[in-house]
Amino acid sequence: MTDAGWPDARLEGLLGSRHPIVCAPMAGAGGVELAVGTILGGAVGSLPGAMLDPETLLDQARQVRARAGGPINLNFFCHKMPEPTDDTAWRALLEPFYVELGVAPSTTAISVRKPFDEAMCAAVEAARPDLASFHFGLPAPSLLERTRATGARILATATSVEEARWLAERGVDGIVAQGWEAGGHNGRFLGAPPETQMGLFALLPQIVDAVDLPVIAAGGIADGRGIAAAFMLGAAAVQIGTAYLRCPESLIGPGHRAGLAGPGADRTAFTNVYSGRLARGLPTRLTEALGAVPGKVPPFPFAAAPLAPLARAAAERGEDGFSPMWAGQSARLAPELPARALTERLAADALALLGGKG
Amino acid sequence: MTDAGWPDARLEGLLGSRHPIVCAPMAGAGGVELAVGTILGGAVGSLPGAMLDPETLLDQARQVRARAGGPINLNFFCHKMPEPTDDTAWRALLEPFYVELGVAPSTTAISVRKPFDEAMCAAVEAARPDLASFHFGLPAPSLLERTRATGARILATATSVEEARWLAERGVDGIVAQGWEAGGHNGRFLGAPPETQMGLFALLPQIVDAVDLPVIAAGGIADGRGIAAAFMLGAAAVQIGTAYLRCPESLIGPGHRAGLAGPGADRTAFTNVYSGRLARGLPTRLTEALGAVPGKVPPFPFAAAPLAPLARAAAERGEDGFSPMWAGQSARLAPELPARALTERLAADALALLGGKG
Repeated sequence: MTDAGWPDARLEGLLGSRHPIVCAPMAGAGGVELAVGTILGGAVGSLPGAMLDPETLLDQARQVRARAGGPINLNFFCHKMPEPTDDTAWRALLEPFYVELGVAPSTTAISVRKPFDEAMCAAVEAARPDLASFHFGLPAPSLLERTRATGARILATATSVEEARWLAERGVDGIVAQGWEAGGHNGRFLGAPPETQMGLFALLPQIVDAVDLPVIAAGGIADGRGIAAAFMLGAAAVQIGTAYLRCPESLIGPGHRAGLAGPGADRTAFTNVYSGRLARGLPTRLTEALGAVPGKVPPFPFAAAPLAPLARAAAERGEDGFSPMWAGQSARLAPELPARALTERLAADALALLGGKG
Repeated sequence: MTDAGWPDARLEGLLGSRHPIVCAPMAGAGGVELAVGTILGGAVGSLPGAMLDPETLLDQARQVRARAGGPINLNFFCHKMPEPTDDTAWRALLEPFYVELGVAPSTTAISVRKPFDEAMCAAVEAARPDLASFHFGLPAPSLLERTRATGARILATATSVEEARWLAERGVDGIVAQGWEAGGHNGRFLGAPPETQMGLFALLPQIVDAVDLPVIAAGGIADGRGIAAAFMLGAAAVQIGTAYLRCPESLIGPGHRAGLAGPGADRTAFTNVYSGRLARGLPTRLTEALGAVPGKVPPFPFAAAPLAPLARAAAERGEDGFSPMWAGQSARLAPELPARALTERLAADALALLGGKG
């Protein structure tokens, strides 16, 4: 048992935080303020690197370090960039929106979602985070070794037992078991069909049984009950995203924030329209108009660039619909509090449920 | 707390069993032996009525009563039968299999899955079960009232918060919250798209918060850890199906039994090919050949009749593939034991995890 009363002491060596809670890295939503608040509350603070350049990420990490003394996690995507593909059909599908919003179709194929590379690895070497976490697999072995050599413990996402075993064989220090319920990008990387994705009730104990590593439960956990349930299923810690989206420190826009408390929160679904990969979010104008998973979407991450001018123009008119509004299935469960207070509440509520177990 | 040490005493009034466990009614798999074994182990035994005629169900209920003194649950489907539709496209899709197996296409449109009706209600009045549970909504008010007047407590399945509220308004005594993970037919009845189905981690606490009724958690629970986790999320009891499928008392065939322990157990998925409605099962020859959810399947329950001669012919050759092999996502977690011993193990393991809480 830990000093704070948690049943699994493995987390102290792995996470280094008072509470077995990782604030999920959420590209576009998480930044310095959210990381500082969660660390001060006793959790691991995360900075998402997937949409940042290395200099910005390093600068953010230094700001967090200066303001909060606890563990920090830097998170990266590890997709392989495909060759740029013909996205004519996708742009044609978007044409009515270009006309309506009076903007010129984007002709650049620049992606804001980049895989972990040499330059980002150099930023990690300079930042020396307590943890580095990877999504969509792992980086090239040389980059993984350099990351490990900084002293960072390595976490990576598994969406299946097979992926958990694959990661364990490559020496990660902990597995983030991501269930069907989770918001944002599904981390699937070994090609299993998305409709076979397990809910956390099934996935978590099967990964716990399959690997001899601490497992961090992710997906649908947004209050103390979920944390306590994850511990019963064998988790050593939890990763919480959507609940922190509602904090004042998160960087989401007002439409997204309102949506998390609205009727759409009951019908989140996977969509590929915003990036080319499946990610769970609230229904939006774009998913309602095109369907959540239309066939003409180019591969990840190239779906996003043609949407950029639409998102900009809509935002200028105070409208949403062309930017993703990621959310997990438990948005409604989250108390709406600042990050530090939310972290303390989550931990206290879970410990009260687990209390008699000490 | 109950005498047996469970934290939620509401279950005693609702279920009448020593342990807060309902053996899921599984049409085609559950029968007298499974019901007797589970009741003797301290759970609620269930008899699935959806594929039986009233006389057979009544006879089975009397056999169970004669051999086991605990509570019995009779379960029924409440779909509305659609007008028989043109299934030419569906039969055309199956044509190659008719040729291969050398059987004549079935020309009858008789369905083995019937909704709860007057005759079945009369059987309930004669059987006087402790509980009656309904799937796909509720029967007509007059039939529901007659069922209630027998003294049976009424349970019904909800797959969303909206469905739970709908059922609560109609006076059910308990809600079965069925998560994404569950095997067999998904109980969806208010029309929400299947891709918005919540995992149990998200669904269960949101239903618990929404209705002032005991909630029975279903889907992905197959060992003591899952039971304990469900209690943390606010369940008053659990319903377990797939774990009991592996008991010697279950009526599934050898191919299905082997499949539950094979690699397909990691990739169960919803399919409509066996009935016309989505149900979770192992991959089979038919789902691999046609896709899990082909577009040409007639509405529930009419997809099944054209498959019947194929299933019979394949069975005579010792082959599977044309009969469903329902399974939830946690098949791998289940210890393989007789029903009474499995029930006792499930209860003991869960109580050990919850033990300090008394």
